[in-house]
Amino acid sequence: MSVLVVGSLALDTVRTPFGTVTDALGGSCAYASVSASHFAPVSIAGVVGGDFPKDHMKLFARRHIDTKGVEVDQSGRTFRWRGYYEYDMNQAHTLETQLNVFAAFKPKIPPPLDRSPFVMLGNIDPDLQLDVLERIRKPRLAMVDTMNYWIEGKQSQLMKVIRRCDIVLLNDAEARMLCDTVNLQVAAKQLLKLGLKRVIIKKGEHGCLMFSKNDFFTAPAFPLELVKDPTGAGDTFAGGFIGYLASAKKLDENAFRQAVIAGTAMASFTVEDFSLNRISRLRPAEITARCRRLHRHTRFPEVKL
Amino acid sequence: MSVLVVGSLALDTVRTPFGTVTDALGGSCAYASVSASHFAPVSIAGVVGGDFPKDHMKLFARRHIDTKGVEVDQSGRTFRWRGYYEYDMNQAHTLETQLNVFAAFKPKIPPPLDRSPFVMLGNIDPDLQLDVLERIRKPRLAMVDTMNYWIEGKQSQLMKVIRRCDIVLLNDAEARMLCDTVNLQVAAKQLLKLGLKRVIIKKGEHGCLMFSKNDFFTAPAFPLELVKDPTGAGDTFAGGFIGYLASAKKLDENAFRQAVIAGTAMASFTVEDFSLNRISRLRPAEITARCRRLHRHTRFPEVKL
Repeated sequence: MSVLVVGSLALDTVRTPFGTVTDALGGSCAYASVSASHFAPVSIAGVVGGDFPKDHMKLFARRHIDTKGVEVDQSGRTFRWRGYYEYDMNQAHTLETQLNVFAAFKPKIPPPLDRSPFVMLGNIDPDLQLDVLERIRKPRLAMVDTMNYWIEGKQSQLMKVIRRCDIVLLNDAEARMLCDTVNLQVAAKQLLKLGLKRVIIKKGEHGCLMFSKNDFFTAPAFPLELVKDPTGAGDTFAGGFIGYLASAKKLDENAFRQAVIAGTAMASFTVEDFSLNRISRLRPAEITARCRRLHRHTRFPEVKL
Repeated sequence: MSVLVVGSLALDTVRTPFGTVTDALGGSCAYASVSASHFAPVSIAGVVGGDFPKDHMKLFARRHIDTKGVEVDQSGRTFRWRGYYEYDMNQAHTLETQLNVFAAFKPKIPPPLDRSPFVMLGNIDPDLQLDVLERIRKPRLAMVDTMNYWIEGKQSQLMKVIRRCDIVLLNDAEARMLCDTVNLQVAAKQLLKLGLKRVIIKKGEHGCLMFSKNDFFTAPAFPLELVKDPTGAGDTFAGGFIGYLASAKKLDENAFRQAVIAGTAMASFTVEDFSLNRISRLRPAEITARCRRLHRHTRFPEVKL
C-alpha cells in the first residue's frame, strides 16, 4: 500500500566536524519519503520555491516518488535551515531558519493522495498537520512527528493532532517535555491514554522504545564508528518505519517491531553521509544486511536459573 | 564454580527524591557479591571497621557468602560515602567520602580464595587491584571495574590492571574519557587491542554494550516506572554478570549474552529500593521472570525486503 508524507522540503547548509554542505536537499518530507520509498510506493506533499534545484526533483523521480502534491511557488525561495554540529553529534546548533515559501504554506492534497492508507505527518506546524488531517479520508494508519518548538509554542494544537493519529514519534527530551516527567515509561503511558495505538520514543545513539497497550519493544541504534552528519536521522527512521508497515501483510506486533528495525537501519545509513547522499542510492541487499546485523546484535537465549 | 569479589564495603548515607538512608550497607563488594550469590558460590575480600553492623555481616551469611577474606579493623571506622541524587538519577552528587579503614587497606586473599576461578575486581584503587592480581593464581576469568577518579588520577596503573584482566567494565563517560573519543565503538576497539576478551560499556537507563573481537551485543535496561535509588546499579550488574558466568557450563557467546541479561535484571531490582534491600531478598523466580521480560522486549523476526 502507499504512503503519503507531508512535511518540509528544505535546502540545508550544514557543518559538522567532517565537512560542510551548502543548500543540500533536506527537510522532514525529503528524508522520510526517500527512506519510505525503499519499502513502498510514496507520494509527497509540500512546497518549494522557484530556486529549488531540478536535480532534487530528479532524485524523487529516481526513487519513483509521486510529487503531484508538491507546490512550486516560482516567485519565492525554498525553506532554508543553516546549522552545525560539534563533536557531540546529538546536539544540532541552529544558526538560521528561513521559512520563505513555507511561511504561507497550505498543504494541497490532490486526489488520489487524499485517500492514502498510510500517512506520515512530518515535523511542521501542528495547525498545518491538522489541516492535512481535515483534507484526507481517515487513513489506515496516521503517524505524527514533532519537535520541542511546537511543544513549547503550540501544545494544545499539537495535542489535537496527536489525538487524531495512531502513532506519535518523539525523541526522549520531547517526550519528557510534553508529559512533564523524567521517566519515559510514565510519559508513554500518559500518551497511550490519549487513545494512541503506539508511542515511539527515539533516543538517538541509544536506539528507540516502542510502547503499546500490551507490548513494549526496545531496539538499539546500529553501531557506527563514524557519523558524518546526523541531520535527518529521525525523519529517515520515520520513513523507513511507515514504509515497512505499508509493505507488511499484517499490522501485528511483529510487523511493528520489524518496522522499527527497518527504520533503525535506514537512519544508520543517513548519518553516514551528508544530506540524502547515502539513502538515495541504497540497494535492498544493503538494507537487509543491516537489519540482519541488528538481529544478531540483540538476540540471546532465554536465561534460566 | 566460585566467584571472588574484591572491593569496598561501605556505609552509605544517601538521599534521593524518594527518601533517605543513613549508614546503609553499600560499596562495590557488597552489591556485586550479593548479586552474584543468586547464581554461584561467592567469597569476598575487603575491610571494615569495628563499627560495621553485625546485621550487615548476617546479610552476607544469609546469602551464603564466604567472608573469610573480610578484615575487621576493630580500632577503625568503616569506609563511608554520603551523597544525593536529584530527579535526574543518572548523576550522583558526592557530599563526603571518608576512606577510614580503607585508607590503609591491603587485600588479604586467604586460601583457598587465591585460587578462585572467577574474580571480580570492584572499583577500588588500581594499585590495590594489581595487588590482588599478584596474590592469586591466574583465574579462568578476571573482570575489572573502575571509575573516572582512577582514570584521571592513576591511568597508567589502571591500564596495567586492564591488561591483566579478561573483561573491563566501564560506563560510557569513563570509556570516552579513557580512550579519548566520543565514539563508543572506537573506544571499545582500542580497549580490545590491549588483549581484553570483552569490553562492556554500561549506559545506565540505556542498557549496555558488550564488545568482543568477533561479536557485538547490545542489551536494553529493564524499563522501570520508579527508580528509588540508583546507588550500586553498576556493581549489581557486574555481580550478576560474573555470577551467571560462574554457573554456566560453557563460556561461549550465548553464555556471555545471558550473563549480560542476568546482570541487567539484577541491576533493575537494586534501583527499586535503597541499599541492598531488594536484591538481598530476591527469589529465583523473580529473576527468571525479569530475564524473560527482557527477552520479550527485544526479540523480533528477521526483516527482509
